[in-house]
Amino acid sequence: MKNLIVGQSGGPTAVINSSLAGVINAAHQNGQVHKIYGMIHGIEGFLKGEIMDLGSFSEMDIMLLKTTPGAYLGSCRFKLPMDEQSPLYDEIFKQLEQQNIGYFLYIGGNDSMDTVSKLSKQAARRGSEIVFLGVPKTVDNDLVLTDHTPGFGSAAKYIATSVRNVVADTDAYDMKSVTIMEVMGRHAGWLTGAAALARRFAGDNPALLYLPEAIFREEEFIKAVNEELTKRNSVVICVSEGIRGEDGKFICESGSTMQEDNFGHKLLSGAAARLEEIVAKRIGVKVRSFDCGLTQRCASQSLSKTDVEEAFTAGSFALESALAGQTGKMITFIRKPGDYAVECSLADVNLICNQEKIVPLSWLNFKQTDVTEEFIKYVRPLIQGEINPPTEDGLGRFLIRKNR
Amino acid sequence: MKNLIVGQSGGPTAVINSSLAGVINAAHQNGQVHKIYGMIHGIEGFLKGEIMDLGSFSEMDIMLLKTTPGAYLGSCRFKLPMDEQSPLYDEIFKQLEQQNIGYFLYIGGNDSMDTVSKLSKQAARRGSEIVFLGVPKTVDNDLVLTDHTPGFGSAAKYIATSVRNVVADTDAYDMKSVTIMEVMGRHAGWLTGAAALARRFAGDNPALLYLPEAIFREEEFIKAVNEELTKRNSVVICVSEGIRGEDGKFICESGSTMQEDNFGHKLLSGAAARLEEIVAKRIGVKVRSFDCGLTQRCASQSLSKTDVEEAFTAGSFALESALAGQTGKMITFIRKPGDYAVECSLADVNLICNQEKIVPLSWLNFKQTDVTEEFIKYVRPLIQGEINPPTEDGLGRFLIRKNR
Repeated sequence: MKNLIVGQSGGPTAVINSSLAGVINAAHQNGQVHKIYGMIHGIEGFLKGEIMDLGSFSEMDIMLLKTTPGAYLGSCRFKLPMDEQSPLYDEIFKQLEQQNIGYFLYIGGNDSMDTVSKLSKQAARRGSEIVFLGVPKTVDNDLVLTDHTPGFGSAAKYIATSVRNVVADTDAYDMKSVTIMEVMGRHAGWLTGAAALARRFAGDNPALLYLPEAIFREEEFIKAVNEELTKRNSVVICVSEGIRGEDGKFICESGSTMQEDNFGHKLLSGAAARLEEIVAKRIGVKVRSFDCGLTQRCASQSLSKTDVEEAFTAGSFALESALAGQTGKMITFIRKPGDYAVECSLADVNLICNQEKIVPLSWLNFKQTDVTEEFIKYVRPLIQGEINPPTEDGLGRFLIRKNR
Repeated sequence: MKNLIVGQSGGPTAVINSSLAGVINAAHQNGQVHKIYGMIHGIEGFLKGEIMDLGSFSEMDIMLLKTTPGAYLGSCRFKLPMDEQSPLYDEIFKQLEQQNIGYFLYIGGNDSMDTVSKLSKQAARRGSEIVFLGVPKTVDNDLVLTDHTPGFGSAAKYIATSVRNVVADTDAYDMKSVTIMEVMGRHAGWLTGAAALARRFAGDNPALLYLPEAIFREEEFIKAVNEELTKRNSVVICVSEGIRGEDGKFICESGSTMQEDNFGHKLLSGAAARLEEIVAKRIGVKVRSFDCGLTQRCASQSLSKTDVEEAFTAGSFALESALAGQTGKMITFIRKPGDYAVECSLADVNLICNQEKIVPLSWLNFKQTDVTEEFIKYVRPLIQGEINPPTEDGLGRFLIRKNR
């Protein structure tokens, strides 16, 4: 019997650990895996020999892991070399063989699928029988060839919940005001669109949604805000961190150099603050903005049960697919017709890595300031069901890795 | 039988409506009140004749109201004139008498208690038998003469929950980083101190807490952050919006004019962003900051059961006290010795309005970068117990005022 190794990579989500729990649980139950290892800090830590044994996980550990936010194993943003001849690949395969690994599962987003793609190609090149599979995760929901990604549903639920709360709050005053909330998603507006679920009745806030799929035009923005201010006192606006102007530049981009990560992605933040400036200067109404920040990708207090369970299932399915000899693929969700249900499938990871699935423009209204009913129909099932983490002393109880 | 009127004033909280529910429920059950009116937008709306009948509230309405964030009746920031001879007071008492009001209850913070103070003095001056009572609410927990205020417990629970989630998230990477979260509280550090509850074990993040009770010194800050960075990869810092430097100026204060509200309070925001700049410039490590924003005062997804129930009880107690002829007072909580329990009492509203209760310096550690065990003992009981609002389609179901 071969050993399994599983890793987490990229930005954590509220349910990336549920997928890990799904892998561990399935490996325990299946009995065809000898040892279950976890990479500490993904492939980067693996290269330093940082692995841990996950074989002794109890049912209680698995249950706690399912609702623990963040990456239990630790994560990385490590790009494998383009050069297929790089000695780094020799090192990786030497270590994989030393550990008698037969199954390599990697839970991550599109950058992490690049790692799965490169390693599975290397395996083919080397005639290695090790299989490499990706398990999707990202709050951005920007992976292609899958109906949606684990992590998105809970983030969407957190955003919709927070926006509904803020709308209830900002409705309090008998005065005109504008509140602008900045939402994650990079180049994709899925999360910002999900804010539409917050509406309690037709015409309720959030009044305007600015997704990165639409070009942001200041004049039209001012016009739209002024129009909304004639209809109601409090205008709540949600804006994606990644909106761009007609010149293609990010609205949050200032003169100063922006920070970049190891994949060359700019760290986006400040779009809402910029829009606040514009409203203050050009409309002069009471305005405030805030960035929903890191909380939106790790919110354990508003988990979508659907998301937690699907993330877990994706982990189980990955283990079974690996044992069935599948390699170079990512787990995908296929939505069935009729009442909401998904089934797991597999797609070629080479067609997924380094791609981005954005919101189709046909799912935006004519003015590109809102999403359509079709978008709502797509996203609403993903936030269904409540699941509250076990608590201790009034706060969520998390599983913590020992020997950190 | 006389009529009752109840209003909400100042910034909403997650449980200000639970106090309103407590008032309505007690008035229903008591039977000694004829009509129950609500002021729309506090005293400001009342002056425009904007009132509504709350007599027809069903048990279901009261149940929903208990967990609906924001100010159901609408709120205001309206300062009554200093001049006791102002014709505005004639107008208010004329309207109160027209509506046959015997009991005036006002749910709010220290500014709102100013309204209760002024109106009860006017009543004495005029020989009016109308009684005026205040029901405390504020996430800032800065009202004197009460152990704590309704609203604080749920906000503290939201902050501690969010910080614990963010700590789980930022622990993911094997690299040095600093994350700075900005917390509400104006001149009081109660909410920022509550972030200490997020620690899962001794020495866990948040590593540093900066409360407005301590003078912020950049050199000591840099030293403290550098020291924490030697101990761990991810350093999470919580900072109050209202921290000030040695010159007494708010750290968030820039050259530009700050916005002020009707009570002359500056709108504080930007302390975390300023600290991010300092870390980026002087330490050069990966750093990001975000303001927890409005979500922290209206978070219906992390309500403290203790807080919701106490807010409700404060409302009931106010109704009973009003019927007993009490006036010019605010409901207070007295903490009993032994296991956590509070009893309601009354204190002279003149001693409360326009005062601020700050965190005693003896509850900060020597370096003033953390709270002591005594602070923890004080705050921990206030976040206990989970209460989840009823849901519809995956989101919290709120009670919405008709004819908005």
